[in-house]
Amino acid sequence: MKNYTSIHDIDNINSWIEEAKALKENPLKFKKLGKNKTLGLLFFNSSLRTRLSTQKAALNLGMDPIVMNVSGDAWGIEFGDGTIMNGNTAEHIKEAAAVVSQYCDIIAVRAFPTLTDKEKDESEHVLNSFKKYASVPIVNMESATGHPLQGLTDAITISEQANVSKPKVVLSWAPHVKALPHAVANSFVQAMQKMDVDFVIANPEGYDLNPEITVNTTITHNQEEAFKDADFVYVKNWSSYSDYGKILNTDPNWMVTKDKIGDAKFMHCLPVRRNVVVEDAVLDSDSSLVIQQANNRTYAAQLVLKKILENL
Amino acid sequence: MKNYTSIHDIDNINSWIEEAKALKENPLKFKKLGKNKTLGLLFFNSSLRTRLSTQKAALNLGMDPIVMNVSGDAWGIEFGDGTIMNGNTAEHIKEAAAVVSQYCDIIAVRAFPTLTDKEKDESEHVLNSFKKYASVPIVNMESATGHPLQGLTDAITISEQANVSKPKVVLSWAPHVKALPHAVANSFVQAMQKMDVDFVIANPEGYDLNPEITVNTTITHNQEEAFKDADFVYVKNWSSYSDYGKILNTDPNWMVTKDKIGDAKFMHCLPVRRNVVVEDAVLDSDSSLVIQQANNRTYAAQLVLKKILENL
Amino acid sequence: MKNYTSIHDIDNINSWIEEAKALKENPLKFKKLGKNKTLGLLFFNSSLRTRLSTQKAALNLGMDPIVMNVSGDAWGIEFGDGTIMNGNTAEHIKEAAAVVSQYCDIIAVRAFPTLTDKEKDESEHVLNSFKKYASVPIVNMESATGHPLQGLTDAITISEQANVSKPKVVLSWAPHVKALPHAVANSFVQAMQKMDVDFVIANPEGYDLNPEITVNTTITHNQEEAFKDADFVYVKNWSSYSDYGKILNTDPNWMVTKDKIGDAKFMHCLPVRRNVVVEDAVLDSDSSLVIQQANNRTYAAQLVLKKILENL
Repeated sequence: MKNYTSIHDIDNINSWIEEAKALKENPLKFKKLGKNKTLGLLFFNSSLRTRLSTQKAALNLGMDPIVMNVSGDAWGIEFGDGTIMNGNTAEHIKEAAAVVSQYCDIIAVRAFPTLTDKEKDESEHVLNSFKKYASVPIVNMESATGHPLQGLTDAITISEQANVSKPKVVLSWAPHVKALPHAVANSFVQAMQKMDVDFVIANPEGYDLNPEITVNTTITHNQEEAFKDADFVYVKNWSSYSDYGKILNTDPNWMVTKDKIGDAKFMHCLPVRRNVVVEDAVLDSDSSLVIQQANNRTYAAQLVLKKILENL
Repeated sequence: MKNYTSIHDIDNINSWIEEAKALKENPLKFKKLGKNKTLGLLFFNSSLRTRLSTQKAALNLGMDPIVMNVSGDAWGIEFGDGTIMNGNTAEHIKEAAAVVSQYCDIIAVRAFPTLTDKEKDESEHVLNSFKKYASVPIVNMESATGHPLQGLTDAITISEQANVSKPKVVLSWAPHVKALPHAVANSFVQAMQKMDVDFVIANPEGYDLNPEITVNTTITHNQEEAFKDADFVYVKNWSSYSDYGKILNTDPNWMVTKDKIGDAKFMHCLPVRRNVVVEDAVLDSDSSLVIQQANNRTYAAQLVLKKILENL
Repeated sequence: MKNYTSIHDIDNINSWIEEAKALKENPLKFKKLGKNKTLGLLFFNSSLRTRLSTQKAALNLGMDPIVMNVSGDAWGIEFGDGTIMNGNTAEHIKEAAAVVSQYCDIIAVRAFPTLTDKEKDESEHVLNSFKKYASVPIVNMESATGHPLQGLTDAITISEQANVSKPKVVLSWAPHVKALPHAVANSFVQAMQKMDVDFVIANPEGYDLNPEITVNTTITHNQEEAFKDADFVYVKNWSSYSDYGKILNTDPNWMVTKDKIGDAKFMHCLPVRRNVVVEDAVLDSDSSLVIQQANNRTYAAQLVLKKILENL
């Protein structure tokens, strides 16, 4: 594997899950693999889990992580082709990506969408510019349209926690005060499509995800129906895709409650707004898997880095 | 020892001091103790000495430090119980503390007081929330009401520098342009109460520290009298405790001068505002121990981390 | 060598270049030299290449790098002597430098000029204060008037890429939208003065660099003439030195184009504003050495750190 920028980079999700579980059992087994190798973590946006878990994953592999908040620590980066750079950006991605490649053996990048310019976001201009101009492998730490380290994490967690052979998994939209990206939802959909699960998406009208991603996936606008007999309820807010980046609905009836999900396991990528997205009673119950998910972020990242290191 | 959040966590200050001195003699003796262990350093506030000395201490023990400025690097954290999180905070401490515990073997936290809400500050809501919701040990890198790494440092420094068996130690308030916390003063008082010293606090009227902390400790409002025959003069500004967080006095006569302290050793936790808190002539003289104190920060932190690591 | 703060600290540039090339061939040869040693990287200003390459260099030598953004992570630093610190600065450099010296075996500092106070900038008050008050070696990661890690890098790059025994090297001013420092240009001039090259500086009238630095060096105001038969064209904007820190000229005719430089190799320290300083056709051609320069930053820093470590 060269880059890990999408769930599509997973060739066989079941074998990846088994490998990740083995890493979790013995996280230091490949401590020599990353010796004298640096991982550059470039953040265009805030991060807690990704920042810490990816560093931990690198350390488990013996790598030296180097963290940089691009905006605060360095310069404004220009992505346009042929631009006359007489504005606010001081360095072109052509140089930035090639330069960072001189110091880092792998580059991990976080760059959120604008949520105002659909075409720009869907072009994944930041992530793809790094892929194009860097001379080392690129790992996606959440881009405009995907968060494949999270999607892999979620697949691992469902595999670990499933009590039945083909569990019913629901991805449910929930309300939020801010317009949020589609990245986590997209990668979760793509991961579920690769797994042997009974998968359904529940969201209000106007909130259907990108149809190119949800192809062949059941979408319902009836949350109650979707939750029936669910084994896993994965909750996430996202802004409208069709009315791009807009908040069309804040209906608190879509908030997830203990009553609604019954015995189903609750999942969320975090951070989560309590009593807006989901009520305390769910998060504070044994049904919540959010901390286990967070823990698995380390092994998802470690597996990805291991596969890249083995291929360097 | 599980957590180190207060001077009260020191079971025997004299043996701790001797252990710290031994670490200072041979800082790399326990380099293997922290191998493959991460220390998460979470800063809600600025830091220079604590940031660097705690990292250095971790490195001396073979740990991997991971630094995060919570506000700038991650999200606003919610501490309220049962809050409907539709405001500025994006992640609840319940999740944040539990999540960071997945990646770090020990979590060190800096969180200053509001100085406007006495009850909130005295509840130590940030530090205690981490203690409550984290699954790994917590180290206090200065909280609302205490700075026990500094207090331990100061005890070590006095022990190293004392020429008499029961030295006279004065903690003197000094003027400042900003309203400052009580944390350093509190922990110094608590450390001195555990040591075999003749201890007195000098501060203007209206500036008595929390009486629950200064219990059985002499307080005078006469700085000159306090300084008489002093062996150590520890200087620190703090805002009023009774008129909570207010600046009641900026009298330059409380500034510490060479004339006033004579042959006494001068101590301060730093940063210190020259010619406001203390005159240049003191800081630039051989009587000043401020740099030795700063150096001992490493060994105080290293001792604390060592004791926690041995108990993991 | 104790400190590396200027190109003048290079005793023999040719032997340094050969040593740097040897390090580049075998970057991990001295991995044990820096074991258990910390490098403190203190940034008063933004940085990308310097931040990453200096960390990489430290890691190659087995050192532990500790990065701090002074303004964001710590306090405002006071540099004035005898100041009554009742303003915005909270810690004096006398303490700051001495304190950081307790935790770091070498301190590297970046501090840009004001470009408004020539005397202050030329006094190098930040860098020289660290030299004066720190008890450990100081490395200049770009100061008010010099960027000697860049200058050394450029000397290495020219030596690697020269096809003739005494190449013609041109330093050309180019237009820019912001007032920029003289540091890179100054250090490049000083490096070229030590090398066996045919060196000429081209800049518009009013843009002559500090005559104390350009002594005995040819300056022309005719770019076309300067570029004739050039082997290397090093391009950089700087603000006026005589009319200190001012932008006197933004003439796009000084922008560097493929037509103008012909077969000459193009060099720039980066970041570079495309189609303002230099056109895309140059940067995107094989004549551009900017990425090779960036790569050599690691080995320039590594050589400097190695020489200091050997002398500790």
